[in-house]
Amino acid sequence: MPALSELGNLVIVLVRTRNPLNVGAAARAMSNFGVHRLRLVNPYEVAFREARSAVGASDVLKNAEEYKTVAGAVADCALIVGTTAGRNRKLQHPLRRLDEAGTELRQHLQAGRVALLFGSEKIGLTNDDFSHCHWLLTIPTRKDHVSMNLGQAVAVCLYELARSGPSQTSAPAPPKAAAGVNEQISRVLLEALDRSGYVQPGSEAACESKVRRLVQRFELDPEDAKVFLGMVRQMVWRLRQRKG
Amino acid sequence: MPALSELGNLVIVLVRTRNPLNVGAAARAMSNFGVHRLRLVNPYEVAFREARSAVGASDVLKNAEEYKTVAGAVADCALIVGTTAGRNRKLQHPLRRLDEAGTELRQHLQAGRVALLFGSEKIGLTNDDFSHCHWLLTIPTRKDHVSMNLGQAVAVCLYELARSGPSQTSAPAPPKAAAGVNEQISRVLLEALDRSGYVQPGSEAACESKVRRLVQRFELDPEDAKVFLGMVRQMVWRLRQRKG
Repeated sequence: MPALSELGNLVIVLVRTRNPLNVGAAARAMSNFGVHRLRLVNPYEVAFREARSAVGASDVLKNAEEYKTVAGAVADCALIVGTTAGRNRKLQHPLRRLDEAGTELRQHLQAGRVALLFGSEKIGLTNDDFSHCHWLLTIPTRKDHVSMNLGQAVAVCLYELARSGPSQTSAPAPPKAAAGVNEQISRVLLEALDRSGYVQPGSEAACESKVRRLVQRFELDPEDAKVFLGMVRQMVWRLRQRKG
Repeated sequence: MPALSELGNLVIVLVRTRNPLNVGAAARAMSNFGVHRLRLVNPYEVAFREARSAVGASDVLKNAEEYKTVAGAVADCALIVGTTAGRNRKLQHPLRRLDEAGTELRQHLQAGRVALLFGSEKIGLTNDDFSHCHWLLTIPTRKDHVSMNLGQAVAVCLYELARSGPSQTSAPAPPKAAAGVNEQISRVLLEALDRSGYVQPGSEAACESKVRRLVQRFELDPEDAKVFLGMVRQMVWRLRQRKG
């Protein structure tokens, strides 16, 4: 499997987060996807303290930095992108869909530090927060329920940025059993069916074709073919043995 | 902006979930991405009750269905996919990365119902759960921290499936037999094997998984499934008749 994209240049900025569980969830997703820089702007004090002291709090959380202003939190970043559910608001910034902006964001991440901003659970980012952003990012969701949970939104964004690009050459086709093996299976299965009374007199040829086509469509890999042949052989053995 | 992909054919199955917050988070992500069918297999009772009665519990949660077995929860589904972090385990199923499997999954969703299984927070899905699956799906994460939070994993999977996809031009996947039919075939085939002396004493459970996985991998279309079931039934009928 190809490696994840490197996200060492990504900075996650949580602005005025209220819920310690969300801070923890964001940190966990960051750890999953190899993102180390977490910055909190004016977090609800209790949220930050509780999240930090939670059992299993990640290194991400322990190394998180606190800032008083968005400007301070993004000062060393070359590209600033705000996230928004995008409802009920006249946006003065270009709004891009995450699934369409992934490639461009990955390119920026190769060139320099990128900040991704997430607002508070209740109101998201404000227009003042947006004023620090080059453009805005939205996760495409259903019109009737656009607002995602903060920890889930962070996870989805990181997944998109870490994916190895939209169009990898697809994996090689899995190996298939040789035709000779399929033929063996067909013959043995046909005998089992014949001994079971499945094959009507006069329909032998039609039944043979039917069985062969069916076995072809199983598209067995070599290992499965061996196993299945063994199974059918065992049944034939029993059916022969018991013949009157 | 292009619309989200339709996910009306997707069924999310949570197996033995412990934490009510995770059940709620999964339901919220489903609501965000327009997925309505939530099924729980043996959830921790308290988790299900608390999640359902939570403030703001979504329609998804209110309409969630409870099942005793994985087989029951996926009986009407044509493709069954299990999710796994993929660590420390010898997998007997093909393992695909979410970012590479998205297109194929979207094609299946156009053709019929698809179940996506998520295991418990602590141990994930078991090998027995896996035996109901056609293949397994993993979210690519950092090697040192592969295990994602359940609610976040659900959100990431749904995001991938709902994205409008880079290459939707390819043909829809051919129709597949419902899992219930595959389960029938497995049971009848197992009886045939048992009556043929194929099943060694003490290996019944292993053999059952083996047969189920094999039948899954046949990837039968509905017509072939009917034909093959008829064949195996005929063999069982004969094997029964001649007994003793």
